[in-house]
Amino acid sequence: MKKYYLMAPGPTPVPNQILLAMARPIIHHRTPEYEALFAEVREGLKWLVQTTQETIILAASGTGAMEAAVTNTLSPGDKALVVRAGKFGERWAEICAAYGVEVVALDAPFGHTVPPDRVADALKKTPGIRAVLCQHSETSTGVLHDVRGYTEATRKSDAILVVDTVSSLGVADLPMDAWGVDVVVAGSQKGLMLPPGLALCTLSDKAWDRVKQAKLPRYYFNLLEEKKLVVKNQPHFTPAVSIVIGLREVLAMLKAEGLANIFKRHDRLARATRAGAEALGLELFAKATPSPAITSVVSPKGIDSERVLAAYAKSHNITIAGGQGEMKGKVFRLGHMGYVGDFDVVIALAALEQVLAELGYPVDWGAAVGAAQKVLAERPA
Amino acid sequence: MKKYYLMAPGPTPVPNQILLAMARPIIHHRTPEYEALFAEVREGLKWLVQTTQETIILAASGTGAMEAAVTNTLSPGDKALVVRAGKFGERWAEICAAYGVEVVALDAPFGHTVPPDRVADALKKTPGIRAVLCQHSETSTGVLHDVRGYTEATRKSDAILVVDTVSSLGVADLPMDAWGVDVVVAGSQKGLMLPPGLALCTLSDKAWDRVKQAKLPRYYFNLLEEKKLVVKNQPHFTPAVSIVIGLREVLAMLKAEGLANIFKRHDRLARATRAGAEALGLELFAKATPSPAITSVVSPKGIDSERVLAAYAKSHNITIAGGQGEMKGKVFRLGHMGYVGDFDVVIALAALEQVLAELGYPVDWGAAVGAAQKVLAERPA
Repeated sequence: MKKYYLMAPGPTPVPNQILLAMARPIIHHRTPEYEALFAEVREGLKWLVQTTQETIILAASGTGAMEAAVTNTLSPGDKALVVRAGKFGERWAEICAAYGVEVVALDAPFGHTVPPDRVADALKKTPGIRAVLCQHSETSTGVLHDVRGYTEATRKSDAILVVDTVSSLGVADLPMDAWGVDVVVAGSQKGLMLPPGLALCTLSDKAWDRVKQAKLPRYYFNLLEEKKLVVKNQPHFTPAVSIVIGLREVLAMLKAEGLANIFKRHDRLARATRAGAEALGLELFAKATPSPAITSVVSPKGIDSERVLAAYAKSHNITIAGGQGEMKGKVFRLGHMGYVGDFDVVIALAALEQVLAELGYPVDWGAAVGAAQKVLAERPA
Repeated sequence: MKKYYLMAPGPTPVPNQILLAMARPIIHHRTPEYEALFAEVREGLKWLVQTTQETIILAASGTGAMEAAVTNTLSPGDKALVVRAGKFGERWAEICAAYGVEVVALDAPFGHTVPPDRVADALKKTPGIRAVLCQHSETSTGVLHDVRGYTEATRKSDAILVVDTVSSLGVADLPMDAWGVDVVVAGSQKGLMLPPGLALCTLSDKAWDRVKQAKLPRYYFNLLEEKKLVVKNQPHFTPAVSIVIGLREVLAMLKAEGLANIFKRHDRLARATRAGAEALGLELFAKATPSPAITSVVSPKGIDSERVLAAYAKSHNITIAGGQGEMKGKVFRLGHMGYVGDFDVVIALAALEQVLAELGYPVDWGAAVGAAQKVLAERPA
């Protein structure tokens, strides 16, 4: 027996009580029971997304919500500014291209960010931009983009700001209404501690106005049709009932912890993870603000990062993630979002020491764990 | 305590062992474990869909698969012939309209079917039809359309035949390859006994050829991108992992029963249900071949069918379904697909006797159950 640990940046571990809640007998989605469930979930999501708006729940994974955000707010030939500094930034551009939306790309090398003044400049220089598309936490690089800064740029413009929070909702603070974000897109399998299968879209009034003008084709992901029914606690199409049931339970867990504590916990775990990696002489891939959801580490010289993954899996039965696209072989990624606590970080770093030693990298035993412990021992002032 | 029964035409009850299998700790979708799971599921689906083709599994509900079938095989301005004899036939037309596909509608009154010769005639009279879209089991009316007959018409034509089998896969025989069906679309929450959240698309060689020519926009539902990865046992986007795990278990259960037995069981349960309803003097809504998945019953004169639903729910804690769209108030629908056996039919009909008596309809106690019992007592010759 070798205990299994899922430490990838999503899907993340689902708490046992949530797994069992989802294992209850299935209920029908056109019943008073489902309506009561939906009403609870609606209120919980308003709290979590920090908004007065309704969140539309789709049966899809996060990419479905990204596509819905594009097709429901834009028209063919519209221009969209894309913050492209990772694989998910590229995904925004791919979705736009598939639907005939003109992409104005704001590129940064992977591991870096696009500062808000570049967004502001681009909006000034390129007339007619209808939307700015970005990530909050770019899961592929481990960078947290300055969404608050982007809102300053978009608020004064005609553009809506569409933010992929797939790996930041319930992880990093993003007060939608207070900051003035127009579309918040998320999924169930990261900070929400659920299996994949739910996609979430929340729109501001400015974004809902765009929905009425948007001419891109959509049917399954028709947010306006969903919204008409949401207020009646009804889904449009058959929802992923069991995961919605899990969502109610998760929202209760998160509420009990409180938003401020949730964000502090993730920040602490991320700082501990980074401190541990750096104590082993490793380089962090993020050269800008690091994400509290995930730490991307540059594999030591001469060690393909796929070998790090393989050793985590084979020697320790731990699933972590490698690099995507051009980062493949170069970085490995440790997830620390969702149902994670201090000792998950200790395990991830203890295993890292073992794994690197196995691969011939000189390890000062306990260095990573010790550095993390120091962070974890911090007490609020 | 009043025992709960889900007897609607989807979602259908999920067997306890499947619920518990899905409650196992979540696994990551980029691991050898997931690849092994996916390989098993691929083989099982080939057996279930009766094809040598790969089935594409999408994280979506059935309507997502319907949309995928349209957007992956057609181009703007293409003509599609739609067999429209129920709410789901209407859905095909709505999806086409949303994407700029010209609909040539073959309408029949709800409860009736469109005979194959009308399809053949329409294909001859209207040049340039690229696809025929239909249901196998029209869940809203309880009619089984003659898909085999439709294949005779489409096989000689340029059109592909796209069949929504959401409520017939694993319920009624539809040998995809033998009959020459081009696209089979399904969902997880009916005959497959799973929670909603998976959508399935299986394409013939003729349909895959169309995918290369099809110009409708798609990204999340890009079947060709999925297909490239399926052969490597990998998903394109994050899959609904827990439901895929359930699918493996369900396929094993179905295989153990065998296709012929599965179809016979559903046929027997459907005949018993119809016999029971008719023994109470009720009229069946289906005026054509009735579906083995679901029985739609015309509510007795003077009794709004919503009251029948309400009495089932309130007095007996049983969820059945009412009429959709123009059928609302007029019919009630009893599901008998998936994890159902003889005594579920007995329960549904015993409750029906109680419900109708409660609503003032004259009931000969035991008449419905007795008529069903007679059918259930049949032994194979």
